[in-house]
Amino acid sequence: MGGRSRGYEAERELVRKLWRRGFAVVRGPASGAKVRKAVYPDVVAIKNGRVLVFEVKKRSRLESIYLDKEQVAKLREFARRAGGDAFIAIKISGMPWRFVSVERLVDTGGSYKVSHEEIEKGLSFNDLMALVETTIPLTEFANKNRGRDEASTRA
Amino acid sequence: MGGRSRGYEAERELVRKLWRRGFAVVRGPASGAKVRKAVYPDVVAIKNGRVLVFEVKKRSRLESIYLDKEQVAKLREFARRAGGDAFIAIKISGMPWRFVSVERLVDTGGSYKVSHEEIEKGLSFNDLMALVETTIPLTEFANKNRGRDEASTRA
Repeated sequence: MGGRSRGYEAERELVRKLWRRGFAVVRGPASGAKVRKAVYPDVVAIKNGRVLVFEVKKRSRLESIYLDKEQVAKLREFARRAGGDAFIAIKISGMPWRFVSVERLVDTGGSYKVSHEEIEKGLSFNDLMALVETTIPLTEFANKNRGRDEASTRA
Repeated sequence: MGGRSRGYEAERELVRKLWRRGFAVVRGPASGAKVRKAVYPDVVAIKNGRVLVFEVKKRSRLESIYLDKEQVAKLREFARRAGGDAFIAIKISGMPWRFVSVERLVDTGGSYKVSHEEIEKGLSFNDLMALVETTIPLTEFANKNRGRDEASTRA
């Protein structure tokens, strides 16, 4: 329960951040967590027809994160239908948010992995916002794997 | 409780119909109905960047429907941010779905009203799907208030 409620709190925080930046934002249903996980992304954000879908992961420390393959498949399918881009939104305690495109997930056989290196070089929230203003596909931009400039990040 | 569960069942049905037509669909959180009503549309559907947001109303018979003004304001704001179009999705027992654009709501002072005449001449599900394929703004199309052809409706 502690883990779940922390996860929900992270989702709420992400929703607020996106809302403040002008997005229409919706969280998946909070009840029936298992059913919900099978169908909905944790958070869907839309701005002027640009769609971002997120699976939210909260961790107390920087470590590799493993994702259920079926869950990632659903996230991708949702993004494909919506014409949007899918990200793993990662909140490590004491670190700013990091966003890793589903295109960068590593298939380990039984699951998908986001290594701690990938988390560290993930997009910041401001990077993500900058991408939404551009016209190139987000996943392409995300794959450029550019360096971070924390000083410019308003977490 | 009966009314609420019937409403949820109608939402689920709408979600399934939209999903089958290729939309990414999300329902607002099912728990904390009051909080949810203040923030989220009942259903959000997205297809290739085209966004439809719905307030769902289920009634056992054809009658005028009254909507909370603040709720409608939130629906409009969500649609504005998303760059989408907002509809009242109405399911009357024994009738096919009808969709009325928020642009057609009548201000009665204390609330917004959808008259039973407006419901009867509302868009069918297939009308709505046809609109999504067009490039003109949905609300403009919806305002044309065209006649129904029930024979062409696959409910």
